Amino acid sequence: MSEKYIYSLKEGSVDMKDLLGGKGANLSDMVKNGLPVPPGFIITTEVCLKYLKDQSIMDKIWDGVKSYVAELEKDTGRGFNDKKKPLLLAIRSGARISMPGMMETILNLGLNEETVEGLAAESGDRRFAFDSYRRFIQMFSSVVDEVDFDKLEHVLTEARKKLNVTFDYEIPAAELEKIVAEYKKIYKESTGSDFPSDPWLQLRKSIEAVFKSWNIPRAITYRKINKISDDLGTAVNVMAMAFGNLGNDCGTGVCFTRNPSDGEKKVYGEFLINAQGEDVVAGIRTPVPIDELGKIMPDVYKELCDLMNQLEKTYNEMQDIEFTIERGKLYMLQTRTGKRTAAAAVKIANDMVNEGMIDKKTAVSRVTPEQVEMLLHRQVDKNAKKDVVAAGLPASPGAGVGVLVFDPTEAEEWAKSGKKVVLARIETCPDDIHGLFAAEAVITSRGGMTSHAAVVARGMGKPAVCGCEEMLIDLTAETLTARGRTFKKGDFVTVDGSSGTILAGQAPLVEATFGEDFKKILAWSDEFAKQEVWANADTPEDAARAIEFGAKGIGLCRTEHMFMAPERLPVVQELIVADTMEERLAALSKLKVMQKEDFVGIFKAMKGYPVIIRLLDPPLHEFLPKEAAVLEELAELEKKGQGNSKEALYLKKTLDKVHQLHESNPMLGFRGCRLGMVYPEISEMQFNAIFEAVAELVSKGVKVTPEIMVPLVGLKGEMKFFREMGDKIAGEIIKKTGVKFDYLIGTMIEVPRAAIAADELAEHAQFFSFGTNDLTQTAFGYSRDDAEGKFLFHYVEKGVFKENPFSELDRVGVGGLMKIAVEKGRGVNKDISVGICGEHGGNPSSIAFCCSIGLNYVSCSPFRIPVARVAAAHSALGVLK
Amino acid sequence: MSEKYIYSLKEGSVDMKDLLGGKGANLSDMVKNGLPVPPGFIITTEVCLKYLKDQSIMDKIWDGVKSYVAELEKDTGRGFNDKKKPLLLAIRSGARISMPGMMETILNLGLNEETVEGLAAESGDRRFAFDSYRRFIQMFSSVVDEVDFDKLEHVLTEARKKLNVTFDYEIPAAELEKIVAEYKKIYKESTGSDFPSDPWLQLRKSIEAVFKSWNIPRAITYRKINKISDDLGTAVNVMAMAFGNLGNDCGTGVCFTRNPSDGEKKVYGEFLINAQGEDVVAGIRTPVPIDELGKIMPDVYKELCDLMNQLEKTYNEMQDIEFTIERGKLYMLQTRTGKRTAAAAVKIANDMVNEGMIDKKTAVSRVTPEQVEMLLHRQVDKNAKKDVVAAGLPASPGAGVGVLVFDPTEAEEWAKSGKKVVLARIETCPDDIHGLFAAEAVITSRGGMTSHAAVVARGMGKPAVCGCEEMLIDLTAETLTARGRTFKKGDFVTVDGSSGTILAGQAPLVEATFGEDFKKILAWSDEFAKQEVWANADTPEDAARAIEFGAKGIGLCRTEHMFMAPERLPVVQELIVADTMEERLAALSKLKVMQKEDFVGIFKAMKGYPVIIRLLDPPLHEFLPKEAAVLEELAELEKKGQGNSKEALYLKKTLDKVHQLHESNPMLGFRGCRLGMVYPEISEMQFNAIFEAVAELVSKGVKVTPEIMVPLVGLKGEMKFFREMGDKIAGEIIKKTGVKFDYLIGTMIEVPRAAIAADELAEHAQFFSFGTNDLTQTAFGYSRDDAEGKFLFHYVEKGVFKENPFSELDRVGVGGLMKIAVEKGRGVNKDISVGICGEHGGNPSSIAFCCSIGLNYVSCSPFRIPVARVAAAHSALGVLK
Repeated sequence: MSEKYIYSLKEGSVDMKDLLGGKGANLSDMVKNGLPVPPGFIITTEVCLKYLKDQSIMDKIWDGVKSYVAELEKDTGRGFNDKKKPLLLAIRSGARISMPGMMETILNLGLNEETVEGLAAESGDRRFAFDSYRRFIQMFSSVVDEVDFDKLEHVLTEARKKLNVTFDYEIPAAELEKIVAEYKKIYKESTGSDFPSDPWLQLRKSIEAVFKSWNIPRAITYRKINKISDDLGTAVNVMAMAFGNLGNDCGTGVCFTRNPSDGEKKVYGEFLINAQGEDVVAGIRTPVPIDELGKIMPDVYKELCDLMNQLEKTYNEMQDIEFTIERGKLYMLQTRTGKRTAAAAVKIANDMVNEGMIDKKTAVSRVTPEQVEMLLHRQVDKNAKKDVVAAGLPASPGAGVGVLVFDPTEAEEWAKSGKKVVLARIETCPDDIHGLFAAEAVITSRGGMTSHAAVVARGMGKPAVCGCEEMLIDLTAETLTARGRTFKKGDFVTVDGSSGTILAGQAPLVEATFGEDFKKILAWSDEFAKQEVWANADTPEDAARAIEFGAKGIGLCRTEHMFMAPERLPVVQELIVADTMEERLAALSKLKVMQKEDFVGIFKAMKGYPVIIRLLDPPLHEFLPKEAAVLEELAELEKKGQGNSKEALYLKKTLDKVHQLHESNPMLGFRGCRLGMVYPEISEMQFNAIFEAVAELVSKGVKVTPEIMVPLVGLKGEMKFFREMGDKIAGEIIKKTGVKFDYLIGTMIEVPRAAIAADELAEHAQFFSFGTNDLTQTAFGYSRDDAEGKFLFHYVEKGVFKENPFSELDRVGVGGLMKIAVEKGRGVNKDISVGICGEHGGNPSSIAFCCSIGLNYVSCSPFRIPVARVAAAHSALGVLK
Repeated sequence: MSEKYIYSLKEGSVDMKDLLGGKGANLSDMVKNGLPVPPGFIITTEVCLKYLKDQSIMDKIWDGVKSYVAELEKDTGRGFNDKKKPLLLAIRSGARISMPGMMETILNLGLNEETVEGLAAESGDRRFAFDSYRRFIQMFSSVVDEVDFDKLEHVLTEARKKLNVTFDYEIPAAELEKIVAEYKKIYKESTGSDFPSDPWLQLRKSIEAVFKSWNIPRAITYRKINKISDDLGTAVNVMAMAFGNLGNDCGTGVCFTRNPSDGEKKVYGEFLINAQGEDVVAGIRTPVPIDELGKIMPDVYKELCDLMNQLEKTYNEMQDIEFTIERGKLYMLQTRTGKRTAAAAVKIANDMVNEGMIDKKTAVSRVTPEQVEMLLHRQVDKNAKKDVVAAGLPASPGAGVGVLVFDPTEAEEWAKSGKKVVLARIETCPDDIHGLFAAEAVITSRGGMTSHAAVVARGMGKPAVCGCEEMLIDLTAETLTARGRTFKKGDFVTVDGSSGTILAGQAPLVEATFGEDFKKILAWSDEFAKQEVWANADTPEDAARAIEFGAKGIGLCRTEHMFMAPERLPVVQELIVADTMEERLAALSKLKVMQKEDFVGIFKAMKGYPVIIRLLDPPLHEFLPKEAAVLEELAELEKKGQGNSKEALYLKKTLDKVHQLHESNPMLGFRGCRLGMVYPEISEMQFNAIFEAVAELVSKGVKVTPEIMVPLVGLKGEMKFFREMGDKIAGEIIKKTGVKFDYLIGTMIEVPRAAIAADELAEHAQFFSFGTNDLTQTAFGYSRDDAEGKFLFHYVEKGVFKENPFSELDRVGVGGLMKIAVEKGRGVNKDISVGICGEHGGNPSSIAFCCSIGLNYVSCSPFRIPVARVAAAHSALGVLK
């Protein structure tokens, strides 16, 4: 810990964010650049961390606080606790990473029975003085001593009612005095003590309250959602007050240097005349658009615009500022990087490159993968009129429209009958999963970002608004009530999971579109990324889409989906039910013709880019009908007296096979390469189909880069078996056709043993591809189907997992195995290509990890390619770790 | 490769077994010690390995062979291809590790039309000369040129018939000459060439044939079964012939320095007068017990006994020798360590210690864990009369008696009806598994030591004789025919899986017993072992047995078995079906009382040794009745009009729970510590029951060492949760009772993630125990239930696995994870105790591995403790690796 606990704004600098917090560092920088900032000082984040462990630190810093307050007295010409010209202070939190609204603020500190009179006399405005005093008591009581804010607010509301006025500034001084007295009474009732009148005590308790606010629940939750470390702590900014509530030549506001909603280059914001900061957000008075300031105070407005322009140029970044006007004089209270929508992020990044403010690298780093994801979801049309029913947490992005249903089973039934439904619940539990699955979107009145509904909805890619507490769900009456309106089962609503709002009726939705600005960001991303992005695609259509989204190869082409096509399934079933090798080969030769055509199509679509085709993977029983269905058909036939018909006999054989193939844990059973080890003829058919397709295309001059991937390999002997099989068949086809072609045969790494024995596998495998879905299942011993609904959600909620490991790669365990595999594999074959084709290949944090361990590419579903391209660039740029 | 390819017996020495093979090295040693050995030389194993890659090596060594033959000529005073005094040679294989009967031998080499006449003239015995020639042609033809041995043997049989004699030595010279001519005809018909008369060509082809015999199928199989490397090769021993067939003052035999069957200290063996080596094994003449030699040739017998005594003293080990007597002169042809039964091994080891020949270390190292295992199985009473039906491979040890059944489903039905059955099949397949499970023992006519039947039977611990090809199984007639007898379904047979024989009727079986000698071996083993042996035991009875077998702790006490007791199951079901916490706590408090009593019993039985109690592990649905059973009961109630009774409602709730708990992959589902994470009250009950039991006993002065093990942990957060829970409860009980006690809380390592993150777990876990059953399942992605029947057996057969990884620990993958876990765990807590409680804890090779990575103990089922104690000693002594 450094010895210096406190910095004045003059001493601080912009590069001291860790120590001074973002707000403090930026304020110091504004001071340095000559902007009008009220004088102040900062107590460092280190003091906060120390305080949270051991409160005696306050004694150590107290002399320092006193001397910095003395400096403020000198700078302002006012005196703390001075009865004539009292110095009043604003106490604000300021973490390294901005957490807007999460922690505490106290204004007008320093007022008591005497100084308020001094302030009244000095300002000549008794109403102002008592308004300030009232505000201070209200903030201090609730923040420092946990007095019920609503009780205090109630006094104010009653006063307005009694006086028949709308706004606080209409309450006269005399009434405010009464309110102050009433507040103090409530304070004493609540705490058992008198409201502290010693400004030093006020200051000390306020500083401590800000420190403590680091660990209030909403702050912890915010950090969890935004993945901010709990170990940073907050600084405390102590500044001389600038008063926006001193009359109509005063005011306060917030504004952005560009429009945070669409990115337009124009100062954007709002303000209130004769108000203090909290009025802007309180919602009683409607703030006025910032342009209006130009009409009311043209000089101040011009100065503000100039300063904002200057700030944007200083930081080369869109700024979000707070200001106060005290009797016509502008004070800057804060500047920080402005939050923005995804669309705005893309536009601003492009515009700033065009304006020469930033380079392409910076532009790319300013569009997060999460923002790209937003752009890829359906959204509520931003030009549509939005009839907001209620607002909650933006638990899962995207938008969905449907009729309200309150019961999960009913949701499933309605969905089956073709209706689009929105499932509304107080909260969801694992038993509701069928309803979640059936719904277009989910809304809950309880639960946070890691509640069951939130976790499951994100996993399914469905929009969700959770923890919407202003909404009352009555499961018996099947109604939803919020903001005075009631909606019944069957009423249409629109769920905007990106903003966390629920809208009445069917709002128009817009599909994701890629503008030119966005395409530029993607193209620049590719320039910086060190890893290629490939796609998981099973059909020529998917392949074409992948190319369109910028894929540089297919990392996973699953052949089983080809087996599942309705016209093929009967042939696959023949194959499985076959008793003899002859019958099996007959079925296989029919399948080969079909598979070959599939591969021709995919190879053509991929225009010479690599295509990794995976041999048949799922357990064979997945291709057979369900037992109940066969029994039903058999019963039908027997009813018709056809119990011994050829058809019935075949059904009986099928039934036998269904029983024979039954497994207690199919995930860990007879699947993957184990099928081909026992029935090599199936794999031989697939190799033949692939290489015949390749030979045919190559003979026509089409460029083809085929790679064949063996699934679920765990043993050297397995890899050797398939490598030799493939090499033999390729050799035969090259000989037969006279067409030469190259190809690779490699393996998935999707069981831990494959990772541990990667050196042995690399003797025969020509590439590796991590199947992180199965690797996560086997590393943890989780069946995803069972775990996500039954206990993983508890784990995420309890914080045992930060994130569902099927969404975000577990770096310690699964990642540890991947590292071992890469090291061992490259130890044997230093140039071996290693990629990932599990779903994590489309998850930004997972992509960053894959980049960090030196994978050659990540492969994901076509729709996630843009996210992955930006994530890969961010990883290479060190923005994403 | 060394430059010297050939060594004379005078040049070789006993420490050159790698190069000269066991036989050659021992012969050299006998020469050095002055024993009567015919002169000879050895071509090294290196030449063999080279030859198998590149046959041109024969040209390189040929001059050497010639000069060593010249030396033999000098030593014997005879000439190779000399028409008067021909030198005849014996060519024998000799690998580093003895593989009796597996490779080839050729005697009397050097005979042709001319030398045979010389031999006749010189010996004055024309019959002898042509008998030798006949033998040579027969051996050479079949060994070198693959002429059908039976065709040649047929000529001999016909001749005996024609002459109406029983034995070959009764065939006169003239007839032998005709046989020779007939043999040569068959040779020519079979090979297209004349039988080679050039002795040099005979020699060269014979040497090559011995080299090649390294890779004949029976040799490969033998090595596989006995885990001998394929990379050793065989040496070739070329020796001057000593003739046992020169008349009635000649003979040949084999004998042991002690009885290989029971270990008695007495020369044991048999011999034949006027015979060559192969006659002893051919089975036409019955060899005579070695004592008889004392009567026939007392001097030779005395010399033989003296020499055997000398050899045993030289090697301090029981010897198995071959000898030939040529006209009253004794020649030693071989000495080697004698194979022996388990019982003999134990007795000999003890006796030799008592005789001062060997020390205790050596004694322990001479009793293998496999032999200990034999002693632990039921065996056919060795004193019983054995009516052998047929002999095959000893595929799975132990003995079983039952009636013959040929259909697996029938086997199951008969077994259910209380009959003991032996399942007889041509071979078995995964569909027969229910029959295998039901049978006392299994016999098959086809398939080797790694066939489905063999692998499955060993896995189940059932006796099996496989690949019994002399047995004809007729599945239609349901009969077994062998050696001229036919057995029907329902006939009793006895299967001796240890010797690989099938006996008629119900042979008397003896249970395993431990003699004093065996107890001494075990006690000595404990002196040398570096690892303790603990037991897996769930009940006070098991615990007592474990102590009796020498366990030093309980490595796994499963609490779920306590839950399964008939009087408890309803309470467990109440717990699971409970809707509310109140109901759950009510059921738990009943269970706690019962569990506490269990723990008191086990702790008492273990007399202060550590007891590791595992918290509840299996998925909850295992405690519920099957869906069909509940439906049936419900239907019953409805029939009685009690469809809405309390009982029916409870059944409906149960049914709901059955559905709710259904999982697609229960192995990877809601089980292990995941139960306690979601329902902490269950684990709290268990902790309370354990610690209350401990406090009660400690207060009475009983010594108790409790350790609590959390199953299926993968995450630091899980371990932390249970450690804190346990510490809290222990603290409360210590406080409440005032009784102080120590305890440990640790974790199983049974999913790969736990191994990879062992450093994180070690922050909270106080011990580790490898659950290698589940770790094998998850590392490979195998469900044991599905894999063993469906494909693992193919894998073992194809050689992808040397051994089923559920029987013998996979050192690369599972072992690799274990090593990582030990290193990472000890990195954080260098004294952390690490053990194993999976089934591998009782497998010798796996124990050796566990010792090599520094585990503190192995824990296995009580019956395997003796095997494990010896295996641990062998590991420490470096005998078992």
